[in-house]
Amino acid sequence: MVRITVIPSVNEACVDDLIGKTAVVIDVLRATSTIITAIHQGCSGVVPVETVYQAKERKKGDELLGGERNGRQIPGFDLGNSPFEYMTEQVRDKTVIMTTTNGTRAIQKSAKASSVIAAGMINARSAARSALSLKRDIVIVCAGTKDKFSLEDGLCAGLVIAEIERLSGERAECDDFGMAMRLAYLHAEDRLEDEVKSCRNGKRLARIGLGEEVEYCAQRNITDVVPILQDHILTSHVLK
Amino acid sequence: MVRITVIPSVNEACVDDLIGKTAVVIDVLRATSTIITAIHQGCSGVVPVETVYQAKERKKGDELLGGERNGRQIPGFDLGNSPFEYMTEQVRDKTVIMTTTNGTRAIQKSAKASSVIAAGMINARSAARSALSLKRDIVIVCAGTKDKFSLEDGLCAGLVIAEIERLSGERAECDDFGMAMRLAYLHAEDRLEDEVKSCRNGKRLARIGLGEEVEYCAQRNITDVVPILQDHILTSHVLK
Repeated sequence: MVRITVIPSVNEACVDDLIGKTAVVIDVLRATSTIITAIHQGCSGVVPVETVYQAKERKKGDELLGGERNGRQIPGFDLGNSPFEYMTEQVRDKTVIMTTTNGTRAIQKSAKASSVIAAGMINARSAARSALSLKRDIVIVCAGTKDKFSLEDGLCAGLVIAEIERLSGERAECDDFGMAMRLAYLHAEDRLEDEVKSCRNGKRLARIGLGEEVEYCAQRNITDVVPILQDHILTSHVLK
Repeated sequence: MVRITVIPSVNEACVDDLIGKTAVVIDVLRATSTIITAIHQGCSGVVPVETVYQAKERKKGDELLGGERNGRQIPGFDLGNSPFEYMTEQVRDKTVIMTTTNGTRAIQKSAKASSVIAAGMINARSAARSALSLKRDIVIVCAGTKDKFSLEDGLCAGLVIAEIERLSGERAECDDFGMAMRLAYLHAEDRLEDEVKSCRNGKRLARIGLGEEVEYCAQRNITDVVPILQDHILTSHVLK
């Protein structure tokens, strides 16, 4: 039986919860959705870093700088945190150094896990398949927003659990928070986009004219790309 | 529109979240279920205190001492933390000084709210009615277990939200965590007892022979008693 723990937001992730496990990091709006999209588009890899300074220090040659602070593109950066910005030829075969308020921090904080996978609704089934193939206990880390739980990340955690159960053909053994996210997702399954639009981040993004991005990020299983962290860079995971 | 925030576990409750609001404190397994049962049985009031020492210091005359540490009755105390122990004539017209690991701590921590209500599944509809009648924003405080989220408290929070929506005839305006608990409850609604039995505390209590108590605490709306905190004592709330 697969054992799954779900962490409600990045600040609640402890190293002890991660060691020896597979971490599945989720920031639906928008960091992991954007990273998945970039790699789907042919970006050769995404390097998650914590600070703007680290991003600028780390950049070499024709690498690109991407990310946001408080939802806005960072001055001097090539790209922001919108998945739509990464759907161009600009990112093909390039490495992107990325820093965001919640998502890249959650990836970095999860680096003590045996493997770190970036997941969103858009790659949930493939992320579930990759996590299962690694044959370890799974910790799903919801990035949340400014240290608070975000519904879209929780629903995506429930979706990943549901996909794991479909693939393995049995119930997963979840902690109480994971059980709650699984139940919440199953109730929202038939109107997922509406639920994502009605939560705090969904409303906030719609207010600033980014409703289409919310709709894009709320789609399920539109890509098989699974970014996995190796040597501090997220690249596409190819299952053996 | 009613505004509702849900706190996942007692250690996440901040005074700032509570001031000027109505707090609904939930510890389904078992403190609030036991307090509701005691008052339903004719107990004149329950005084929640934090430590065993405070309980012994506070006791006067024929008052009773009740509570648990790590699920076990405290040496020298009259009663433990089982609702079944409070279903006797022993508690009628008596005051009980009570200390438990999570539930009474959550009640004490919520004391900065304008009003504090003790809720469980067994009085959810009446607790919802009382909370609505107070006409303030509502904060539902899930006690959790040892600073971690417990599914049964989260499902009860969802149940209270669902009852508030039924009574008010409109959707509540919930924070993201409250939205998740509402969805989780609605999915579990038809097999609530099974979900409560399958979570961590439900299994733990069943293992030590207390499965019947879990079944009792997982029942919905079997009493109209709503304990409300006034001058450090929980007594039955009578709606004006």
